[in-house]
Amino acid sequence: MMEFKQVIVVRGDLKLSKGKLAAQVAHASVDAVFKTLNVRPEWVYKWLEQGQKKAVLACPSKDDLIKLAEEAQKLGLTTSLIYDAGRTEVPPGTLTALGIGPAPSELIDRVTGDLKLL
Amino acid sequence: MMEFKQVIVVRGDLKLSKGKLAAQVAHASVDAVFKTLNVRPEWVYKWLEQGQKKAVLACPSKDDLIKLAEEAQKLGLTTSLIYDAGRTEVPPGTLTALGIGPAPSELIDRVTGDLKLL
Repeated sequence: MMEFKQVIVVRGDLKLSKGKLAAQVAHASVDAVFKTLNVRPEWVYKWLEQGQKKAVLACPSKDDLIKLAEEAQKLGLTTSLIYDAGRTEVPPGTLTALGIGPAPSELIDRVTGDLKLL
Repeated sequence: MMEFKQVIVVRGDLKLSKGKLAAQVAHASVDAVFKTLNVRPEWVYKWLEQGQKKAVLACPSKDDLIKLAEEAQKLGLTTSLIYDAGRTEVPPGTLTALGIGPAPSELIDRVTGDLKLL
């Protein structure tokens, strides 16, 4: 059986509270799910059936996050970059998180396989 | 204009890592979104149009989380209780989070208005 997952990558260089960080991850997750529904709905349904597996990973910087998004897009993966409105902990427009998929785990691992769990 | 939001309540008595906590919040968010799509799709679309506002709140215990879910259901709100598979930080089947909505903010505030941000 092909395994599906979604990966959310966050910037490890930002100092966000637990609640703020969790909200950014959820934004990225929901946004990437809806984008994927538009282009590969069957991937979303299979992922939901399998229990909507998610992994939250960290990368060192803004530039790394953008590079990961570009690499994912080259593989045909759905991506969602989240910019925070910045009313509280970070300046407005700060890039905080990247959602990728849901998609076949093997495909996502080609982009994020070297990153560590947050 | 009627404002829509989604609230995710997490148990403040569990000691979860940032990444684990963020994944539980994202599970609750996505699951509650799909449930709401089935019963009040127009609420989901309005919420997305408004920028998918989310608040991550904390409650003291498992019993409080279940009570909040029951109160939300009595108001006709969509709820999603998340039980972690527990392979790492908590025992299998641990209740970790509750997603409510998206729904009109005024309606959700009747249930979660007294809770603090995580």
